[in-house]
Amino acid sequence: MPLHPPARIGQSVDDIDTPALVIDLDAFERNIATMAALIPDGIRLRAHAKTHKSAKIAALQMAAGAIGVCCQKVSEASQLVEAGVTNVMVSNQVVGQHKLSRLAELAGKATVSVCVDDAENITALSAAVASAGTTLQVLVEIDVGSHRCGVAPGEPAVALARLIADSDALEFAGLQAYHGSAQHFRTDAERGSAIEYAVADVEKTRRLLTQAGLDCPIVAGAGTGTYSHEIASGVYNELQAGSYVFMDADYARNFDGDDEPTSAFEHALFVVSTVMSSTRPGHAVLDAGHKSVAIDSGYPNVWKREGTRYTGASDEHGVLEIDDAHNTPSLGEHIWLVPGHCDPTVNLHNWYVGVRGDKVESIWPVDARGAIY
Amino acid sequence: MPLHPPARIGQSVDDIDTPALVIDLDAFERNIATMAALIPDGIRLRAHAKTHKSAKIAALQMAAGAIGVCCQKVSEASQLVEAGVTNVMVSNQVVGQHKLSRLAELAGKATVSVCVDDAENITALSAAVASAGTTLQVLVEIDVGSHRCGVAPGEPAVALARLIADSDALEFAGLQAYHGSAQHFRTDAERGSAIEYAVADVEKTRRLLTQAGLDCPIVAGAGTGTYSHEIASGVYNELQAGSYVFMDADYARNFDGDDEPTSAFEHALFVVSTVMSSTRPGHAVLDAGHKSVAIDSGYPNVWKREGTRYTGASDEHGVLEIDDAHNTPSLGEHIWLVPGHCDPTVNLHNWYVGVRGDKVESIWPVDARGAIY
Repeated sequence: MPLHPPARIGQSVDDIDTPALVIDLDAFERNIATMAALIPDGIRLRAHAKTHKSAKIAALQMAAGAIGVCCQKVSEASQLVEAGVTNVMVSNQVVGQHKLSRLAELAGKATVSVCVDDAENITALSAAVASAGTTLQVLVEIDVGSHRCGVAPGEPAVALARLIADSDALEFAGLQAYHGSAQHFRTDAERGSAIEYAVADVEKTRRLLTQAGLDCPIVAGAGTGTYSHEIASGVYNELQAGSYVFMDADYARNFDGDDEPTSAFEHALFVVSTVMSSTRPGHAVLDAGHKSVAIDSGYPNVWKREGTRYTGASDEHGVLEIDDAHNTPSLGEHIWLVPGHCDPTVNLHNWYVGVRGDKVESIWPVDARGAIY
Repeated sequence: MPLHPPARIGQSVDDIDTPALVIDLDAFERNIATMAALIPDGIRLRAHAKTHKSAKIAALQMAAGAIGVCCQKVSEASQLVEAGVTNVMVSNQVVGQHKLSRLAELAGKATVSVCVDDAENITALSAAVASAGTTLQVLVEIDVGSHRCGVAPGEPAVALARLIADSDALEFAGLQAYHGSAQHFRTDAERGSAIEYAVADVEKTRRLLTQAGLDCPIVAGAGTGTYSHEIASGVYNELQAGSYVFMDADYARNFDGDDEPTSAFEHALFVVSTVMSSTRPGHAVLDAGHKSVAIDSGYPNVWKREGTRYTGASDEHGVLEIDDAHNTPSLGEHIWLVPGHCDPTVNLHNWYVGVRGDKVESIWPVDARGAIY
């Protein structure tokens, strides 16, 4: 039996059942417009849909100028394509026969690209695409400092690019050069320095590609923490920021170049919860634990309630500590939480409740929730 | 579009698409039988279904003697009742009109009970149940040391019991006295000492209930960490252990009374993952990050692969470090992970893949996945 949404369109926000994943539509729309305005000519935005997993939000981003979206998994891409998205890059390696076949077939339904960092994987990908009778754009992922996936910059990357270019079924599309760990370096100077190194890696690799007679149309990367540095780099031409639409508590701990807390984007995503136990002053328990709000990047912040902190999460309970015991919330009070990390929080929910002012305006499905294969 | 299951019945385990939630059916069945054999006459098992969220597993537990299951949320209970479960205790407070109405209606479809720790909540519950024309068994939750939910033992608990007994729609069923934080105290002596205090709280409250002329048929509590102490207590008669069916890595860090690692139950739940990037010796990347395996209680353990550790999780990636570089896994290798914490891991998946030996034997839905309201 499918789960019912936690609200109905037209309801007051006070009537939302909890825990619920709530979008402040005004802030969310401003975030999309702000990012669109920041993208200069010659650079494209391919917003990362692992943040939102929603075809509706992808459509709003594309209406504001994004050329498409990124996904991390083939199943995530499939869910979004089935729900209407037309242009998806799987910004990740795809390994295993089931996944490769599904990716190759998906390329018959939408414009699809993928990343590789291994020669054998290119052979398997090429065979899957040839067998499906489709074509696929392929980027070589280089490790620009995160030391997670990606081949070493320079010759190893060029060797893979040549393998791709030599395959009839595949098209070499460029370099994936995303620096994941730099996104949360707290100062702008640290983030800028990390991207400088990444740019040098890209330039070295591009020179060798040119010498090898290989075009490199796309240089892709960037997230909500570093995008301004990739824009300024002169080498990146496709940005993959995702979290900017929602702006979570962890990104809000970054500082801008002026050493002030980062301010370009507003918190637009909340988990609305209810006080379910309030048995003594200074202490209350919420109905939102870590099955409702992800805690991998810290506990959520309590939104606009002075002296109130979320200090403990179990599966289905969140503990609040309140500095002024007279200010202890009463049973049934709604508490709005700013998630520490939006992406895994969204993945815990089936529905977005869109609110404007004090009214529920929209209910959108989280189309690719749980799409982990 | 619903997500497809990651395997088909009859397939080889090597063909499972990943990340997948896999049950070793032999170990799982032994765990159910072991717990059933441990329960003495006069004590009942009401297995906690927040661990598995599955009507099929609830049915297997009840076939082995459990009288029903616990749930933490009304929606979780609803999903399981719709899928065939006949006896559910919501071992938690239920606050808010939507939830109270749904709980009251659910009591017309199955045997349902619930916990309270607040007088106003009893009034609201009573009104909802009267309006639905059903009846509900209600337990008073006392705080026996976890300092989360629950009213103070003694007179405050008796006052709530009296309110319940005075309501025409409600029936006072007993005390909920679960010590959550004691479950993971590492030594058996620490866990035993915590439960001794809980037992004293229960006894004090029961004496006052008797003086007030109130029967206390149920004393409920216990988890996989402490159940032997509640069994020995002479006061608990309903056990709520859940994790024993799967046995996660965090519970396996407990020690038994002989100071040996706890051994009654076997690891029966795994997240099977695939090496998706292997670009340098001693390092590999899995396709299972914290959207596939919960990390609130630590990283997963790598199962039966010498010198291989899971040392970092992002949304969709898990980093492996391998002590002997010659033993670095190759691209496409399946790596079996023992989750740090079963309950939130299960909640990330739509399907259980049941395996026996090297064959897939069953595919079961996670019926109440995402049932967080």
